[in-house]
Amino acid sequence: MDIGARIDRALTKTLDRNRGPACPPGLDAAIRHAVFPGGARVRPKICLSVAEACGEDRPEVSDAAAVAIELLHCASLVHDDLPCFDDSPLRRGKPSVHHAFGERLAVLAGDALIVLAFQSLPQRAADSPERMGQLIEIVSGSCGLPGGIVAGQAWECEPEVELAEYQQSKTGSLFAAATMAGAASAGFDPAPWRTLGERIGEAYQVVDDILDVVGDEEKLGKPLGQDEARERPSSARKLGLKGARRHFDELMAGVVEQIPACPGAEGLKARVVAEARRFLPGRLAVDAA
Amino acid sequence: MDIGARIDRALTKTLDRNRGPACPPGLDAAIRHAVFPGGARVRPKICLSVAEACGEDRPEVSDAAAVAIELLHCASLVHDDLPCFDDSPLRRGKPSVHHAFGERLAVLAGDALIVLAFQSLPQRAADSPERMGQLIEIVSGSCGLPGGIVAGQAWECEPEVELAEYQQSKTGSLFAAATMAGAASAGFDPAPWRTLGERIGEAYQVVDDILDVVGDEEKLGKPLGQDEARERPSSARKLGLKGARRHFDELMAGVVEQIPACPGAEGLKARVVAEARRFLPGRLAVDAA
Repeated sequence: MDIGARIDRALTKTLDRNRGPACPPGLDAAIRHAVFPGGARVRPKICLSVAEACGEDRPEVSDAAAVAIELLHCASLVHDDLPCFDDSPLRRGKPSVHHAFGERLAVLAGDALIVLAFQSLPQRAADSPERMGQLIEIVSGSCGLPGGIVAGQAWECEPEVELAEYQQSKTGSLFAAATMAGAASAGFDPAPWRTLGERIGEAYQVVDDILDVVGDEEKLGKPLGQDEARERPSSARKLGLKGARRHFDELMAGVVEQIPACPGAEGLKARVVAEARRFLPGRLAVDAA
Repeated sequence: MDIGARIDRALTKTLDRNRGPACPPGLDAAIRHAVFPGGARVRPKICLSVAEACGEDRPEVSDAAAVAIELLHCASLVHDDLPCFDDSPLRRGKPSVHHAFGERLAVLAGDALIVLAFQSLPQRAADSPERMGQLIEIVSGSCGLPGGIVAGQAWECEPEVELAEYQQSKTGSLFAAATMAGAASAGFDPAPWRTLGERIGEAYQVVDDILDVVGDEEKLGKPLGQDEARERPSSARKLGLKGARRHFDELMAGVVEQIPACPGAEGLKARVVAEARRFLPGRLAVDAA
């Protein structure tokens, strides 16, 4: 099965399993709106690719890890779009959750998605309690304190921010969780997989900064120019477009070297390079070649 | 050690363990503001009381369960107080989190507290992976979909609400988690403990509804009359004050009968009755006697 279809099927299964008459219909609809249709599903794809490269012996556990990571990502998008943050009217090419369902259901949908990420792990990984404990540590650490994505977002409320630390928390931490959780779900030691995830996350953040300046608004499905408008730390703002693209090249050059020994290392390398090419918009991809 | 002091020590330990230079100071301060000083800590007290009655053989695991439940409760208070919900200026006798730290840090503090609840479980219960898996299922189910406290809050966004279901989700579910997690943390089957928690939660909700009408604002540390002002489902609004108090009596009469067999059942009964008396304000307690 195509990896994207596998992820969507696992997400659907998780959402279906946790609905019922006790669930308010508005909340259920807001959650589905936040999760489907997805964006690029980059993080769960990385997670499952690493699990496969590690010889994935318990696909249900890898699915659980990929689902948890994508649900946390969706939750962060819903809350980042709220009026008190970006007040974004659009996300993934359709109205943001608070525009479609109101602010209250957007707050609650984000909360429910965070909880669901942790709820789904024991539901799918009950027969692998050791791996499950490791996965909960990895996934919760990437999202919470002291340096997870919530902390990363909170740096935007501080008077002074160190760009590298901000991006490591806001973006890198969930990418690191994706590689680490992929390895852990296949019974591999997750620690050596952290750097790979962090590097991919750094590269991805640089592209995100570039796209915020020169991207295609329709393709991105969200408004451009947000970093500048909100005076948000951004490598494109700090280094300029050319400098940011050069930084991306440097990061990508180092990424594949970070893949730890595993049965499917070669296939994983090829996949990471192919995915990285998809990151850049056509014009910049040519420039970068 | 006094049970309240034990809870505060466990909460402090969890917060201290997850701070560090990567954590934005504003977020750290907002989280501490939300957790300390506490309210009555009713839910973690119930959790630890049940664990003790079950012969608590791993206090670290019971602490983890009690901490997770209290952190989720604190998170729900922070988000319920937000401008789009109650817009409450006060909580526990001091400014609510969004009044003290702004709306953005209030959203993020709530998010971080939810994550921290799950983060703390494997940190403290790493050597009991089976119990940890059970605790994560209990705690996440009580908070998430389909019928946890987030779903309960989302019923407020629906045009029609069934009072019993609303209160069971919004309040009962976390009380049920408190008794079940207490039992599970001591190695007991949690299922028989659900009803006890639900009944205590129902009784507690009725008192909360009554106090919203005739409570002492200073003692409660939050504004009165919110249910009426927001046309929120409330037993005091539905049954009148006398009817609500009668309902409380009926509920409490059944509560102690729900304590399952365990080594410390007698002591637990006495504690539940003593705590229940503390629920009611002086005047109504006399009426009820």
